[in-house]
Amino acid sequence: MIGVADVEAAARRIAGRVRRTPVLSVEGGAFDGVADPTWLKLEYLQHTGSFKARGAMNRLLSAAEAGNLGDGVVAASGGNAGLAVAYAAGILGVPAEVYVPLTAPEVKVRKLKALGAEVRQVGAEYAEANAAALERAAQTGALFCHAYDQPEICAGQGTLALEMLDQVDGLDTVILAVGGGGLLAGVAAALHCRARVVGAEPETIPTLHAALAAGQPVDVEVSGIAADALGARRLGDIAYRVAVDTGVRSVLVSDQEVVEARRLLWEQCRIVMEHGTATALAALVTGAYRPEPGERVGILICGANTNPADLAH
Amino acid sequence: MIGVADVEAAARRIAGRVRRTPVLSVEGGAFDGVADPTWLKLEYLQHTGSFKARGAMNRLLSAAEAGNLGDGVVAASGGNAGLAVAYAAGILGVPAEVYVPLTAPEVKVRKLKALGAEVRQVGAEYAEANAAALERAAQTGALFCHAYDQPEICAGQGTLALEMLDQVDGLDTVILAVGGGGLLAGVAAALHCRARVVGAEPETIPTLHAALAAGQPVDVEVSGIAADALGARRLGDIAYRVAVDTGVRSVLVSDQEVVEARRLLWEQCRIVMEHGTATALAALVTGAYRPEPGERVGILICGANTNPADLAH
Ligand SMILES: Cc1ncc(COP(=O)(O)O)c(C=O)c1O
Ligand SMILES: Cc1ncc(COP(=O)(O)O)c(C=O)c1O
Repeated sequence: MIGVADVEAAARRIAGRVRRTPVLSVEGGAFDGVADPTWLKLEYLQHTGSFKARGAMNRLLSAAEAGNLGDGVVAASGGNAGLAVAYAAGILGVPAEVYVPLTAPEVKVRKLKALGAEVRQVGAEYAEANAAALERAAQTGALFCHAYDQPEICAGQGTLALEMLDQVDGLDTVILAVGGGGLLAGVAAALHCRARVVGAEPETIPTLHAALAAGQPVDVEVSGIAADALGARRLGDIAYRVAVDTGVRSVLVSDQEVVEARRLLWEQCRIVMEHGTATALAALVTGAYRPEPGERVGILICGANTNPADLAH
Repeated sequence: MIGVADVEAAARRIAGRVRRTPVLSVEGGAFDGVADPTWLKLEYLQHTGSFKARGAMNRLLSAAEAGNLGDGVVAASGGNAGLAVAYAAGILGVPAEVYVPLTAPEVKVRKLKALGAEVRQVGAEYAEANAAALERAAQTGALFCHAYDQPEICAGQGTLALEMLDQVDGLDTVILAVGGGGLLAGVAAALHCRARVVGAEPETIPTLHAALAAGQPVDVEVSGIAADALGARRLGDIAYRVAVDTGVRSVLVSDQEVVEARRLLWEQCRIVMEHGTATALAALVTGAYRPEPGERVGILICGANTNPADLAH
């Protein structure tokens, strides 16, 4: 479990190492009047293009404080979590090894290398790359960084919610995308008793929804347009406990609604976001989450590592 | 001429009708350490995707106060100025006619129509469309909105500079793109004696540079990558007088530098901007403008009406 004190400690630790991302207030008309105004937290402007830099920086700096960063870091992810660990390690001047499957796209491998990471391609899918990363960390003493289910990772992600409290007067609600739930855990811990948290997921990867229904994290089928970012097979344990303890709401949207919300944000605000990220705006514009009149809603625009080509007219 | 009082009056007039756009503080490393940090004013998040909504809203509301908006508005522009006038007219519930040449791309015509404007396609180039628009305004009594050389247009654009003073402590310098110079005029009037203004232009359309060299606005050749937004043939008279009176600096960059700056901002911050807009960042990263150590520099990211397809890797 983590609580608000962990998030506050993370905020002090990573201050000056991550960008304080701005908030844009958008009048209701832009999104068909669903909430007027709506606040967009522009976290895609973060280092490496997603909030993941916060958690990675917090995990590495926590380890450094404890004298455990000397042997470098290991992670398994060709996605935003891997980029964030590579970035944080580069800034702090420690070596990073990132494990990805043999099938990882060349563009992802190149990006990791550009950030200074050693890339190890192992196995046919992530489970194998992950096992190799864990083994490597055990051998070398390097710090293993999970994509979502470690307290320092979750607490780091939650720091963006403290910024939102400061940036939006009377914030009532934050809607965000859920994969393994590290982001959800940090934000829900930070906002507990201060604002409501709504976890939005594509129907094609309902990790939070299934966990709440089953009374524990359970494996789900992973498919659909947002699988690159939200494709965890099950909700993390930390996320599950925080979600239940703080009363997080869960809503689902279709892949088509995700695609439309991504295009809507480009049309209305010239903001490019990932499909995974777009689940949060989709939850609002489809009415999957319906705010009360006057409810002050923040939407987390959490990542932009996407190919913008299909947004051309 | 316009002065800071005109800009302040515009700010009061358009408050709540335009978005207060956020500022992002970016550490120097992102742009090769040219200024650390650098502040980006994210004005591309404005209604219709550029700052032009500010000037248009100010011109229309000024006319409404004087009882001169009853017959609607007329403009000649298939670009950001036309979109902004169409938008402002739609919000205020008055008819808008926008003149464009017969050669205007279908996508621009469609956008104007989607904002509720009547589109009139006249002549082979803008000079003819413009003449037709002026004639129409004279016939009908509708309010003619120039793309840059009217006091209310300039003063409206300048309101973003008042926001920047509020958003960036100790702001020393603002770098911005110059076309006909309406933006420059408003910003320089707003910042007079408070911060330096640098006008950045592509070598292929040096309206400000040529005007300062000649001692008056003169026609320049128009070509190159940024011609769609910055393609005015000469600097406006208001811009020239404000630029001389307030000591605006002028710098030039190449089209290739513009293309690279646009890509750099996508790579480092996941922000999509127009080529015209990118001249401002290009001026900083190329050293065409070199800040003093410790100088606090704001870059205006003023428009995003561009096809993002070429930003894919
Ligand atoms: C852009 C983006 N949004 C959301 C998520 C989901 O985060 P979490 O796995 O912490 O739920 C991820 C995870 O990679 C992501 O990259
Ligand atoms: C995005 C953008 N930037 C800059 C300019 C230049 O503005 P001005 O003509 O007021 O100098 C324009 C004009 O259309 C524009 O659309």
